[in-house]
Amino acid sequence: MKNKIQAVKGARDFYPEQMLLRNWLYANMRSAAQAFGYQEYDGPFLETLELYAAKSGDELVKEQSFVFNDRGGEKVTLRPELTPSLARMVAARQRQLPRPIRWWSFGPFWRYERPQKGRSREFFQWNVDLLGVESPAADAELAAVAVTFFQMVGLTASEIKLQFNDRRLMDEQLATLGLAANKTAVFRLIDRRGKLGATAWEQYAGEVGVTPEQLNGLKALLANADLWRQSEGCQAFVEAGQALGIGPFLEFDPTVIRGLDYYTGIVLEARDRESEFRAILGGGRYDDLVGDVGGDRLPGMGFAMGDVVIGLVAQKYQKVPPLRPSPTQVLVAQFDQISPAEALRLAAQLRAGGLRVEWYPETAKLDRQLKYADVNGIRFAALLGPDELAQGCVTIKDLAARTQTTYARAAVVDALRQGLESQM
Amino acid sequence: MKNKIQAVKGARDFYPEQMLLRNWLYANMRSAAQAFGYQEYDGPFLETLELYAAKSGDELVKEQSFVFNDRGGEKVTLRPELTPSLARMVAARQRQLPRPIRWWSFGPFWRYERPQKGRSREFFQWNVDLLGVESPAADAELAAVAVTFFQMVGLTASEIKLQFNDRRLMDEQLATLGLAANKTAVFRLIDRRGKLGATAWEQYAGEVGVTPEQLNGLKALLANADLWRQSEGCQAFVEAGQALGIGPFLEFDPTVIRGLDYYTGIVLEARDRESEFRAILGGGRYDDLVGDVGGDRLPGMGFAMGDVVIGLVAQKYQKVPPLRPSPTQVLVAQFDQISPAEALRLAAQLRAGGLRVEWYPETAKLDRQLKYADVNGIRFAALLGPDELAQGCVTIKDLAARTQTTYARAAVVDALRQGLESQM
Repeated sequence: MKNKIQAVKGARDFYPEQMLLRNWLYANMRSAAQAFGYQEYDGPFLETLELYAAKSGDELVKEQSFVFNDRGGEKVTLRPELTPSLARMVAARQRQLPRPIRWWSFGPFWRYERPQKGRSREFFQWNVDLLGVESPAADAELAAVAVTFFQMVGLTASEIKLQFNDRRLMDEQLATLGLAANKTAVFRLIDRRGKLGATAWEQYAGEVGVTPEQLNGLKALLANADLWRQSEGCQAFVEAGQALGIGPFLEFDPTVIRGLDYYTGIVLEARDRESEFRAILGGGRYDDLVGDVGGDRLPGMGFAMGDVVIGLVAQKYQKVPPLRPSPTQVLVAQFDQISPAEALRLAAQLRAGGLRVEWYPETAKLDRQLKYADVNGIRFAALLGPDELAQGCVTIKDLAARTQTTYARAAVVDALRQGLESQM
Repeated sequence: MKNKIQAVKGARDFYPEQMLLRNWLYANMRSAAQAFGYQEYDGPFLETLELYAAKSGDELVKEQSFVFNDRGGEKVTLRPELTPSLARMVAARQRQLPRPIRWWSFGPFWRYERPQKGRSREFFQWNVDLLGVESPAADAELAAVAVTFFQMVGLTASEIKLQFNDRRLMDEQLATLGLAANKTAVFRLIDRRGKLGATAWEQYAGEVGVTPEQLNGLKALLANADLWRQSEGCQAFVEAGQALGIGPFLEFDPTVIRGLDYYTGIVLEARDRESEFRAILGGGRYDDLVGDVGGDRLPGMGFAMGDVVIGLVAQKYQKVPPLRPSPTQVLVAQFDQISPAEALRLAAQLRAGGLRVEWYPETAKLDRQLKYADVNGIRFAALLGPDELAQGCVTIKDLAARTQTTYARAAVVDALRQGLESQM
């Protein structure tokens, strides 16, 4: 056996079936973002490491980023996330861009992590951001875009929850516990809560300088589901969320803190209610990031959703509709008694009539050609044999209705279009 | 002034205006591919260098590829082209995939070249391929997919030419000149014809071992516009192209050879007839590539079109229609006398009615809010002031017609939908 060249570990092949799922997600993401007036954009795939070093957090920068020197010796990074690129792009045109800035994007990202269920090294991510506004209602709008997407793919509040917390509220609470000084480390500790066992987590707490007494306070804090009621910002966020109709999805969770260093206010995380999967999306308010990459201060709020986990969740809850890879409406068969040029001319005629037409590109028994149409879900076959050619007509087989009719050549486009419409 | 973090050289920022152009190209590429029954797929972005080393050619592999070691020490390459990934994917499922395989893709690629007009280090590329068929008619179908795209964006045969040649024909001719032994080097020499000056090109010919006598023969060969008539394959290709209606675009050119080593038959290249730009697309038949990456031999034919040159060509010939970044149909204004929650509730009501609705996310003078709608091409503004709120109604401003009408809250969705339809 010959040696087949292998794919890179954690990279993904999108055969037409997988591509259909990705495109189905993308189309729903577009619809949800556009329902709120967001404009599509994209950043580059290569950025400088400096861009992430600013505020993305050590794990992402030092452990998970793909960093290398290009042929000119410049150190470049395959983007692990989009928000820093967004901040850089906004900072570069800060005076010209009309505000508010409502932008969304869908594209590939790379993180060097151990591939496992719900996680690959190459993944696609949906990013939605609102810049130039600093209010609980703006935060709630982002939550509503996410929920609108869930609803568009058919996921309900009994299947999905959108958890929120507020880093400002946590800042105050940590200060009360005397933990203000090593806030970044304690946020990381909170972020690891669900990822480590109880013993390992408490040991980690000790390592980052949390005393046993502070640890008790911290545990009480993280168990307080009513904490949000102490925050006017959280109350306004919930009120705005209810006005937007997403109340049933919202759930306060003080353990949700997110791993990125640049968040400054509300943070968001979506999960399936059975907690079978990793987080479906993460996001939050980042009011200093545009300033940190060299722009003037500009508040921002956004979230990102990878394609892998949401794909698994949509499949588990059977939300993915039947998707057919072939776009073909009509297969033009090839008879061995007539030249390919005649079949191609017929195919071109049907295409000029607006139909999506595939030509069977070799002579084969008609049965085999019709079976190919059947396997690919192609509704009609157009037969141009010697008799049809001599008489200036075409026979159309309807493979679903199992009927067949012969039409004059000039009438065949209309006949097929009517057949396709009646099918809908 | 603060130091703004810069983008990587040759990388591209897609602000919403640039994204519209990319999406316009992508949509037309999809339409053209689907008109012929092609199914969308995608390869990974990272591949092994080995995959390209097989047959992509020295320039691409040794000079232009982005190659690096990942954190696990594996040597990976940012894909510089898609055909080797396609061949690998097909080889991996060769027994299961129904044939013929008609696939298309659109995504990012990377080549380390000097950025200049029409060339960036990150670019998007449309790939279209037909595998499992070896015939001039199959070659002509690929040419027709490309021409259908040109026609869909409005480009005509007086603006664009699709040049073809056949490597088998050239093989025979080179053998006649006694140049069969160093064919690969001579193909590269032919490929450089338009890229080097006459003197430099002749010097290069000497360096690759072409004698002065052979050079004269080669020059005569490359000037012979009727050479294709000696080839039955080329004749059948032209006949099939004419049956598909693309005759006016086709032009034989013996200097077209393409730079990739894996081509084995017909090669294609599209250019603007004024030759202002680099090639718009390149492609050809590759009957050994699937075998070369470890599969069984499977013939294939395809082409690739970058987004940069076609974008410049479409702009030069004024084919790009007016494109509006904002998808918003209705702007919900924010009055300072009412709470954001009331405005958000109205926005949610309009969205539930299927409208794309943006909320102005802060209190500002109504004039400024309406100006924002105007700048973004938003047709309608929905005003919910204290009077409207008290009376259960909404005032709709039609910014194009400069009219304004007040509707009962329950009637406002229908009124807006009718207004939008009458606009179309």
